[in-house]
Amino acid sequence: MEKVINLASDNTAGVAPKILSSLTEAANISSMPYGEDPYTEKLQLVANEIFEREVLIYPVATGSAANALALATVSPPYGQVFCHAQSHIEEDECAAPEFYIGGGKLSLLEGENAKFSATNLRERLENHSPAPAVHRAKPAVVSITQATELGTIYTVDEISAISEVCRSNNLPLHMDGARLANAIVSTDLKIADCTWRAGVDILSLGATKNGAFAAEAVVFFDASKAADFEFRRKRGGHLFSKLRFLSSQLVPYLEKNYWIDLAENSNCRAFELAEGLGKIKSVTLLAEVQTNMIFLQMPTKLNNILKKKNCLFYSWGEKDGMICARFVTSFNTTKQEVARVLSIIQSAESATKSKN
Amino acid sequence: MEKVINLASDNTAGVAPKILSSLTEAANISSMPYGEDPYTEKLQLVANEIFEREVLIYPVATGSAANALALATVSPPYGQVFCHAQSHIEEDECAAPEFYIGGGKLSLLEGENAKFSATNLRERLENHSPAPAVHRAKPAVVSITQATELGTIYTVDEISAISEVCRSNNLPLHMDGARLANAIVSTDLKIADCTWRAGVDILSLGATKNGAFAAEAVVFFDASKAADFEFRRKRGGHLFSKLRFLSSQLVPYLEKNYWIDLAENSNCRAFELAEGLGKIKSVTLLAEVQTNMIFLQMPTKLNNILKKKNCLFYSWGEKDGMICARFVTSFNTTKQEVARVLSIIQSAESATKSKN
Amino acid sequence: MEKVINLASDNTAGVAPKILSSLTEAANISSMPYGEDPYTEKLQLVANEIFEREVLIYPVATGSAANALALATVSPPYGQVFCHAQSHIEEDECAAPEFYIGGGKLSLLEGENAKFSATNLRERLENHSPAPAVHRAKPAVVSITQATELGTIYTVDEISAISEVCRSNNLPLHMDGARLANAIVSTDLKIADCTWRAGVDILSLGATKNGAFAAEAVVFFDASKAADFEFRRKRGGHLFSKLRFLSSQLVPYLEKNYWIDLAENSNCRAFELAEGLGKIKSVTLLAEVQTNMIFLQMPTKLNNILKKKNCLFYSWGEKDGMICARFVTSFNTTKQEVARVLSIIQSAESATKSKN
Amino acid sequence: MEKVINLASDNTAGVAPKILSSLTEAANISSMPYGEDPYTEKLQLVANEIFEREVLIYPVATGSAANALALATVSPPYGQVFCHAQSHIEEDECAAPEFYIGGGKLSLLEGENAKFSATNLRERLENHSPAPAVHRAKPAVVSITQATELGTIYTVDEISAISEVCRSNNLPLHMDGARLANAIVSTDLKIADCTWRAGVDILSLGATKNGAFAAEAVVFFDASKAADFEFRRKRGGHLFSKLRFLSSQLVPYLEKNYWIDLAENSNCRAFELAEGLGKIKSVTLLAEVQTNMIFLQMPTKLNNILKKKNCLFYSWGEKDGMICARFVTSFNTTKQEVARVLSIIQSAESATKSKN
Repeated sequence: MEKVINLASDNTAGVAPKILSSLTEAANISSMPYGEDPYTEKLQLVANEIFEREVLIYPVATGSAANALALATVSPPYGQVFCHAQSHIEEDECAAPEFYIGGGKLSLLEGENAKFSATNLRERLENHSPAPAVHRAKPAVVSITQATELGTIYTVDEISAISEVCRSNNLPLHMDGARLANAIVSTDLKIADCTWRAGVDILSLGATKNGAFAAEAVVFFDASKAADFEFRRKRGGHLFSKLRFLSSQLVPYLEKNYWIDLAENSNCRAFELAEGLGKIKSVTLLAEVQTNMIFLQMPTKLNNILKKKNCLFYSWGEKDGMICARFVTSFNTTKQEVARVLSIIQSAESATKSKN
Repeated sequence: MEKVINLASDNTAGVAPKILSSLTEAANISSMPYGEDPYTEKLQLVANEIFEREVLIYPVATGSAANALALATVSPPYGQVFCHAQSHIEEDECAAPEFYIGGGKLSLLEGENAKFSATNLRERLENHSPAPAVHRAKPAVVSITQATELGTIYTVDEISAISEVCRSNNLPLHMDGARLANAIVSTDLKIADCTWRAGVDILSLGATKNGAFAAEAVVFFDASKAADFEFRRKRGGHLFSKLRFLSSQLVPYLEKNYWIDLAENSNCRAFELAEGLGKIKSVTLLAEVQTNMIFLQMPTKLNNILKKKNCLFYSWGEKDGMICARFVTSFNTTKQEVARVLSIIQSAESATKSKN
Repeated sequence: MEKVINLASDNTAGVAPKILSSLTEAANISSMPYGEDPYTEKLQLVANEIFEREVLIYPVATGSAANALALATVSPPYGQVFCHAQSHIEEDECAAPEFYIGGGKLSLLEGENAKFSATNLRERLENHSPAPAVHRAKPAVVSITQATELGTIYTVDEISAISEVCRSNNLPLHMDGARLANAIVSTDLKIADCTWRAGVDILSLGATKNGAFAAEAVVFFDASKAADFEFRRKRGGHLFSKLRFLSSQLVPYLEKNYWIDLAENSNCRAFELAEGLGKIKSVTLLAEVQTNMIFLQMPTKLNNILKKKNCLFYSWGEKDGMICARFVTSFNTTKQEVARVLSIIQSAESATKSKN
Repeated sequence: MEKVINLASDNTAGVAPKILSSLTEAANISSMPYGEDPYTEKLQLVANEIFEREVLIYPVATGSAANALALATVSPPYGQVFCHAQSHIEEDECAAPEFYIGGGKLSLLEGENAKFSATNLRERLENHSPAPAVHRAKPAVVSITQATELGTIYTVDEISAISEVCRSNNLPLHMDGARLANAIVSTDLKIADCTWRAGVDILSLGATKNGAFAAEAVVFFDASKAADFEFRRKRGGHLFSKLRFLSSQLVPYLEKNYWIDLAENSNCRAFELAEGLGKIKSVTLLAEVQTNMIFLQMPTKLNNILKKKNCLFYSWGEKDGMICARFVTSFNTTKQEVARVLSIIQSAESATKSKN
């Protein structure tokens, strides 16, 4: 049987070599628990360096935990989170934010490419009913996703504009950066510039989708939230006794630009794949490819051929012989794999043409 | 100063005579607490009678309590409630449903006249992502409002169609009947026909907006939910020790069609007012008037004149000299009051015309 | 059949005349909802006067709502409430405080007469484990009950001593004053002296057990908590649209010492009853009678005779022919009723003696 | 400087070799996420084998997550969990159970050696107040810890007796088995015998304290709870995308008795250490040493010497020159380390004696 090419998600890949070797090293030492270990201490220093300022960085194991804990730390239980209708916190976390907030509400904004604009947000916030404020969940925090669930990117100007609306409404701005590395690769910006300098107050920083085993971090640019966060992390069951397991992944990840290198591979492979797909007549790209995700429409027949050839990916919404699909490349997707996928598609395309 | 005419809401009116006299009577007896009193016992019998079957009826003091408790009783904490974007549970209860559910989510449907259709609902429920079910809040219950927040009415056919979608998706159907009496007056249906016979499983039955002091009820057509509800009511702080306070309002309210008589006055006055407004050129009705609420647009000038003449109502969204407003009539709004409002408007209209 | 004498609880009595007449008056006016009514405005003034300072007073309908909302306003969701093991919030509110707090914990203290001491509290707070603070629910608030669930009373010195421990641990002090009137009657103190001047920060002030239909209030001596409380009250479903229903009970209750007069009757009747019981050989009082509750042990035979003669009260724990019982007197318990209860007991006692 | 000997906790040790090598292997493959991987599939088979029946096993990363999720799955939000006052769920999880349950209550039982008896439990459950059931949090589940927080062990007879009380009150029995391996080593029982055959319904099975990096599992013996658990795990942020990270630790852990071998070392070293300590006059053991934890009292002077010599452990409660301490041995504590600790103590003892 042919070798599997897994484009289902960037969470299907293994662990990047430097992360694995750091993990192995950490596995072989003894240390005090709950963060009093050399990796967690070092992680703080590394974070301060890449952010070009003092921050507070807290490792957790999953993206849902990072987002839900981050949002709960800045929202009262009757708070309202403003986010895009196609955001991970709305669609893929089983109401974890509402659970951690204690019963709050996500208020969904629309907008092309899974992005909402400063204008969308301002209009929503100004749309006051005549009833007293307590009748509505209280506006509490705004959350954007970078890169978005469609793989698109907010420009720094777009983030800054949203942040201005936040400031004038006294709302903190959260960024779900599960794929921040991929966004940074594409924009060629420094992390400081596209986070706190653009007005982001709290960041969920992903690593799992980009070569870690299971490691994310919540980064606070405002230290006053730290004590509350620490209690919430513990009572959520997210404080690891052997916290070095998480920190030892994040240290090499963030050091020496390793995370950017890893994401560069994902993005480049996606661009190659997208370029190839652009030449296939029967295939339509559904969104601009800006990071490592490709949304496309293709003939169901082609979809089936790819799956038979052991290409793994999600597809949905079959209609009139066409189907939607998503290809996601990873830190270790190879040029050969991309070439093989394209070659399967080209062969299928030729076969179809010659029939006609 | 001129006498106030209060059209701000039907919750601004006083208490209907028979309700007040029952309350007074109940105030003067001694009885065992928490529902072991003659009024609460009688309420159960009256409810069985008007619903033409055995039901379970639980009095609570506010509509938000009724809705939130009803929904929480049938939703797991990670559950999703499907409702209209313009529903009271979404817009006016400060996330009480999410709080009582324990962190669930309201999934908002659109549709004209504050109503969603069976088709809207079916499409939403079929719109599955390819991810495993646990990634999304679990579909748990569907909620409709009768009459809606715009005063419009679901027909029995519309309710039945929604209920069928509920059945085939194994979801209970909740009705927020804060203004059910007004809907019944307009449709001339029996309460059984527009609730359980049309597929409604749980009902929030309002009385406060229709002449009670503070009294609503949750009605279950399926007794298996009762034990859970009783614990939830208590831990929500909604079990009154002198429960007869609530029951003694509801007994006369539901007996001898009193609640229908009260709502008939509200609706008739609204129809009269709407008819009069229909003749005023500068005024536009924004929705068909089916119960006791009138949404209109009028010149800001006219709005100001009315307010100066001590007419109370909500208005919002001033733009280009026009403003939106809502008039709500009550069980005790008089023909004279309606006439006076219309006369003020007509005078203003004439004054304006003569100027032009 | 003989007339019922209801000593089951002070929540079995009816409504005191001045409260009922105020209610009736409020029922007959129209006013804006949610507290913009003359009764709610007046209540604020009356409260400032009886507390001899500016306070914030919020009416709610039940004691569980008052306690749970008050505690939640000052506790993070991972907070710990210190209270007596025999407190209403622990034993009789179905975990309402934990629900409103969002998952917190009651930490139970022991002590005679349902009271804990400053020393009990200090020891509990100093009993630190060597683990980091986040491993334990965070100490958040201390709650005392006045009068206690046994009808006993904290002296001002005892309250002040507890309050000092609170201050030095940076914890607010809550008082559950469901029967505060009864405590005040017995101590002959002003309400200011036994609340904020003794260090109480938040008060649940009861009226329902002392002649109201359904009315309690949360009183804040620190205004900074108000906004949060108002959102919590609404999302708990405890904001009445016709809020004047609650306020119109509380205004006459607190005015002109009416609440003290009502409680005086309850206490006096209890003292008379206790005095009579003290002379009955087969009866043992289980706690000093300081307010309107009497805990006693009596022969099961006597218990049965009383119940057969239509005296209503709770009894439990039958053992060796003896049973425990609780008698609670009310604002409208009469001297005649007390005399009749005592006469039944004396007759039974004589009958028993003469047999021996 | 002398080499550190870490007896602070069994969570300070590194990762056992077979676990690390499985982890490394799992890091190098690609697989579908959320449990569709070969390790998670194998784990299910291994679990069925060691439990001698079909079970459902769900890996999570922390003990608090395992306990809180397990308890929440079987408790309504107004539920009451019966457990020992010195249990991990009460003392060391920052109210995580209350959070996951949605506001429930832990009802604390007392008993020597951190164990409560069937009799304790029965008395608590029978201690009904005369008030209706809804006034109290509803009895929902009983939780025991094996081995306990003091390192002591429930016998199978004790577990069975508790389980019988559970059955007759219709309550499931949960076991917090964070150190179950240590208990099994000491009792020489099969895991089936001391869990489901003794009446345990849900098990939190620990691995982190016994050689894993971060891995626990919730085991259900009743499959009907599975769907609810899976939603709760996800919304708690505890569903790993690369779930094989957890499963690849648990497979080798449970295979071929590895977990028992690891715990055998911990226990043996603790017994050696305890035996040595038993011969030191100035040292008192505070509980029988049945697993890998030693609670002792020793002169503060000795405590300080040990710490200066780089022995790490927790100590607390200094009084009259004596201090309490806890020594915990691990899967990789060596005979040499034990010998060195004892030698330091013996030297200190001799030095003190010779002075006297």
